Amino acid sequence: MAVQAGVSATPVPPAAPGAAFGPAVALSCRECGERTPLGPAFACALCFGPLEVAYELPAADPGELRRRIESGPNSIWRYAPLLPVPADVAGRPNLAPGFTKLVKADNLARELGVTGGLYVKDDSGNPTHSFKDRVVAIAVEAARAFGFTTLSCSSTGNLAGAVGAAAARAGLRSCVFIPHDLEAGKVVMAAVYGGDLVAIEGTYDDVNRFCSELIGDPLGEGWGFVNVNLRPYYGEGSKTLAYEICEQLGWRLPDQIVVPVASGSQLTKIDKGLRELIALGLVEDRPYRIFGAQATGCSPVARAFKDGHDVVRPVRPDTIAKSLAIGNPADGPYVLDIARRTGGAVEDVTDEQVVAAIELLARTEGVFAETAGGVTVGVTKKLLDAGVLDPSLTTVVLNTGDGLKTLDAVAAGPRATIRPSLDAFRAAGLAG
Amino acid sequence: MAVQAGVSATPVPPAAPGAAFGPAVALSCRECGERTPLGPAFACALCFGPLEVAYELPAADPGELRRRIESGPNSIWRYAPLLPVPADVAGRPNLAPGFTKLVKADNLARELGVTGGLYVKDDSGNPTHSFKDRVVAIAVEAARAFGFTTLSCSSTGNLAGAVGAAAARAGLRSCVFIPHDLEAGKVVMAAVYGGDLVAIEGTYDDVNRFCSELIGDPLGEGWGFVNVNLRPYYGEGSKTLAYEICEQLGWRLPDQIVVPVASGSQLTKIDKGLRELIALGLVEDRPYRIFGAQATGCSPVARAFKDGHDVVRPVRPDTIAKSLAIGNPADGPYVLDIARRTGGAVEDVTDEQVVAAIELLARTEGVFAETAGGVTVGVTKKLLDAGVLDPSLTTVVLNTGDGLKTLDAVAAGPRATIRPSLDAFRAAGLAG
Repeated sequence: MAVQAGVSATPVPPAAPGAAFGPAVALSCRECGERTPLGPAFACALCFGPLEVAYELPAADPGELRRRIESGPNSIWRYAPLLPVPADVAGRPNLAPGFTKLVKADNLARELGVTGGLYVKDDSGNPTHSFKDRVVAIAVEAARAFGFTTLSCSSTGNLAGAVGAAAARAGLRSCVFIPHDLEAGKVVMAAVYGGDLVAIEGTYDDVNRFCSELIGDPLGEGWGFVNVNLRPYYGEGSKTLAYEICEQLGWRLPDQIVVPVASGSQLTKIDKGLRELIALGLVEDRPYRIFGAQATGCSPVARAFKDGHDVVRPVRPDTIAKSLAIGNPADGPYVLDIARRTGGAVEDVTDEQVVAAIELLARTEGVFAETAGGVTVGVTKKLLDAGVLDPSLTTVVLNTGDGLKTLDAVAAGPRATIRPSLDAFRAAGLAG
Repeated sequence: MAVQAGVSATPVPPAAPGAAFGPAVALSCRECGERTPLGPAFACALCFGPLEVAYELPAADPGELRRRIESGPNSIWRYAPLLPVPADVAGRPNLAPGFTKLVKADNLARELGVTGGLYVKDDSGNPTHSFKDRVVAIAVEAARAFGFTTLSCSSTGNLAGAVGAAAARAGLRSCVFIPHDLEAGKVVMAAVYGGDLVAIEGTYDDVNRFCSELIGDPLGEGWGFVNVNLRPYYGEGSKTLAYEICEQLGWRLPDQIVVPVASGSQLTKIDKGLRELIALGLVEDRPYRIFGAQATGCSPVARAFKDGHDVVRPVRPDTIAKSLAIGNPADGPYVLDIARRTGGAVEDVTDEQVVAAIELLARTEGVFAETAGGVTVGVTKKLLDAGVLDPSLTTVVLNTGDGLKTLDAVAAGPRATIRPSLDAFRAAGLAG
């Protein structure tokens, strides 16, 4: 079977807009603007640019729309009117992720000298404890709409668990591909939901190449790869981070927001979400600045930003922040655009700074972040110290995952090991 | 310094009811009913019975109280009017746990043959991913009220992390005691929040004995042990599970509820919470049945229930469900009372059944439970098979923790390890 550029081998009739995809009306090319019907496609047939979801958003009174959202479920489905999902999505079997805590981080603010209000958007509260539940939830609804029966992805960790769990609850088969040398904990999380887990002898790049082959082959018929042929839908899930942050701030834009950069997709969708809220009149139109955060061991976007380049030169990742270790980030150029347009920046921190930031956040706010959260908190500290972030402005820092999944990154342990006696405790010098 | 039975060595003036403790007015003995002022006490001075919090609950119109709760925060603090906490508790720095998902488990219901509605109350969504955040949050407020400066506990896992995180955010010092041979993951979770973690050379029983000594010694002055001298307050946190379940069912009692039994405290407080909702008119007064769930390797309460005894004979725990491995459960007799009074039961399942139940829940609903959740789901299945649970009634099963913390319990892994080629994938026979 011949395969068009970026189009799944599976012949699927495009769904009627307005039903399965709510306010979404088409896919549009981010490069040339060409529109194509909603379908399992991911690259423009004209210019091979990335496709994204285009909407006709509701022309509601902002006050009424706010009330409608506020009376919705405590999940991303409160924003169903702004997402490519059916209106009855909250009643379907899915993991209902999102509406995670926006933690007012006063202790951390004091340590960092922030006076304008510092918040941590803590996505470790999601069902499988990372922001991936948001994006996968949208991909699941698209998979249903396209009649896919198997949900799939390539992954090095968080995404594998999110896809396995979401497919299980949705009643879809899942088949997830991982490199063969993953940590045991991530393997268990990827396999426990009962889907097929396949280990590939090779690197993550080998896994990705294999998945691309599979999509174009009849073997892959009926398969929805959340981060390939469902990617335009999947990506929209990250908009909900922007929606939630603004609603939780009292329908107000943050002045500054610090976002981790792996492929860069999340940062671009947060920007898209903020612009939609402004366009709908849900928040006042004021300037906001978006900052990207990378680990120095995989910082191609930060490098390009600092060098003033528009092009991102791929690197070979070498960092403990494995969930951000994408050496050739697809959305890197868009991240550069957004950081420059909003007056933000892209910065990086060393692995030592990542660990110190994980410990700082845990010690001050009781939030145990995964390494990606260490990257954003570390970059926040670095940008404050450098005078790039303004401490007098409202600042939101994203924690997109859970420390329980990257335990090896921190070396926390007992202060003392003692016999069970008061004398031994006294001698240890810990009786405060 | 002489120490009264069950009273901390620390001289603390009892706080005025109505301020720091909201609707709580006294501590009362569960055995003889004797009342004592609100203070850091845990055993009755007359009969050594356990103390619990007594209230003068608001005489509000039920509809008005429901609306007040529903407009409150998405945490246990929406129930502040029914808890021993100040009215402004939601504005204080704490972890704001609770209001976790009540998952409608239709897939699991189909597998188990439940037709009356099956729900999983999933407390893995709490800040440190177990129900312990609920109880510790109440203990933190009591510690503040009593002027304690160090938060402490003995723990084998979930509680250590919950105390460390809660103290960090509340700005309290923490000092937590664990057995020296704990799993690495639990040690990291206990230490990462920056409090003092002390490993004790000995068993969990040795750790407990040491803590009892410390409470009676001047070394322990100013220390709040959440599960000892703050226990009456701490325990009240479990009532919120009952409140949330009923509110999430649309202000309706479940017909049947399956609760894990370690010390038994949680089950007794869930019963207390349900009775309070009935007394306040927030739910219709109808019969409900409470079922206790234990692992066979530590099932002293199930044994006593089956033997028709009132007394629980201590056992030496030997089970993978370590968070339930309390061989001499303090509230065992009360659990027996409640199971018998409500027409429930106490049942146990083997470790093999626990693992199978963890996998069943993950496969059907995408919820990865810790071993304690495997115990409740396993017992639910066993009681349905035995005709003890009625499949035509609304049934709620508690999952009190997170599978990420007990990874070793399940042996999930890849179905196949292959070279990155379509031929190899075809040969593996997984192309569904």
